[in-house]
Amino acid sequence: MLTITNQIPWTAAEFEAELRKQHHRYHHLHPFHQRMNAGELTKEEVQRWVINRFYYQRNIPLKDAAILSNCPDHEVRRHWISRIIDHDGTTEATGGIEAWLKLGEAVGLCKEHLLNDQNTLPGVRYAVDAYVNFCKTKPWIESVASSLTELFGPDAIRTRLAALEKHYLWIDPKGFDYFRTRLHQAPQDARYALNLVISNCRTRDMQERAVQALIFKCDLLWSQLEAIERGETRPINV
Amino acid sequence: MLTITNQIPWTAAEFEAELRKQHHRYHHLHPFHQRMNAGELTKEEVQRWVINRFYYQRNIPLKDAAILSNCPDHEVRRHWISRIIDHDGTTEATGGIEAWLKLGEAVGLCKEHLLNDQNTLPGVRYAVDAYVNFCKTKPWIESVASSLTELFGPDAIRTRLAALEKHYLWIDPKGFDYFRTRLHQAPQDARYALNLVISNCRTRDMQERAVQALIFKCDLLWSQLEAIERGETRPINV
Repeated sequence: MLTITNQIPWTAAEFEAELRKQHHRYHHLHPFHQRMNAGELTKEEVQRWVINRFYYQRNIPLKDAAILSNCPDHEVRRHWISRIIDHDGTTEATGGIEAWLKLGEAVGLCKEHLLNDQNTLPGVRYAVDAYVNFCKTKPWIESVASSLTELFGPDAIRTRLAALEKHYLWIDPKGFDYFRTRLHQAPQDARYALNLVISNCRTRDMQERAVQALIFKCDLLWSQLEAIERGETRPINV
Repeated sequence: MLTITNQIPWTAAEFEAELRKQHHRYHHLHPFHQRMNAGELTKEEVQRWVINRFYYQRNIPLKDAAILSNCPDHEVRRHWISRIIDHDGTTEATGGIEAWLKLGEAVGLCKEHLLNDQNTLPGVRYAVDAYVNFCKTKPWIESVASSLTELFGPDAIRTRLAALEKHYLWIDPKGFDYFRTRLHQAPQDARYALNLVISNCRTRDMQERAVQALIFKCDLLWSQLEAIERGETRPINV
């Protein structure tokens, strides 16, 4: 953990470098994603990932709404609200949540199964809930900083998409729309959020808090994947 | 305060009647609004109302985002998000907050003066902050129920608008757009929220909590107006 100091602020370039330096904490390096990219996951493992990761997906609009509810700057809210719309959509069958449900179908999981939180592993729930609570309780700019994992997302998504298409021929490729859309959205979102963080975090203290928020988010994604890799270990009640 | 019971649920019609019965608690009966409607407010009192009520206006999107952040139903979120857009607008000079700033100009107050929370009376801040905190911490359906003061809003706005146009000729009528827009938006918002509350509150306990949420909101609007009527009583530091 970094120590909060009274040191002079980083320049914008130094600050951005400190943020980007956290790349090694991103979950693309997790063994589960490495095995996914190498084509080594079983069907059951892919399904487990899709089910559990859906809990994260469906909570994204809640964490973005939490950021809005803490943000007094209505220019920022006008922009940030598009993230909620991107995920919730505007009509039935639009938006990121629906797209993930289609990925579910493509790997052989029905909508009802995904929508039932009972099918989510406890470790995944706690990690995701920690994220929503972070955004409910922390200053909005720290929550924005936590979203900067999107700086690392597009490369990981590109690699993942290619791997899924190459190695998992049993998956209906129509299910991959979620990733294709995120390839456009994530870089725009990341650029806007990065500018916001750089322009709003003017003291070294705030800059370091921003870096810590990003580390928190990396930890959370990693922890989520740990639980997914481990899977269900409780005895099944027969 | 109502007591939470295990009684049988009200029918939809009974429940709606219980909600509408709270009309006598709405702030249209407050002496300040009565005097406003009778044309008896001084310019300073009108300005005081516009400045302080703006703190309420600017917090509406925050409380609506708080409701979103607690609502797991993405159909509901898709609908509720329009309230945030109604107030924040989509581009500069659009939305309810900007419309209220124009009302400010019409009564002789500059934007900067309104945007500075230091000009808001403490009693107003506490009342509005209590509302945002209610929506952050209560189940989303209770927060939706608290919005049902909009059942009583349109009649009050119609009366107020007529009174402002008739008695306060020194106010530039271009400032009244906020109220004209709300005359369309509020009834739609109220109808949707009422249906949501009726269909989601199926036990007597939940129904009574919904009524209490509406009472809470009426109390808050009343309390806000108490502070506005009283005005600044602290000695001015010279």
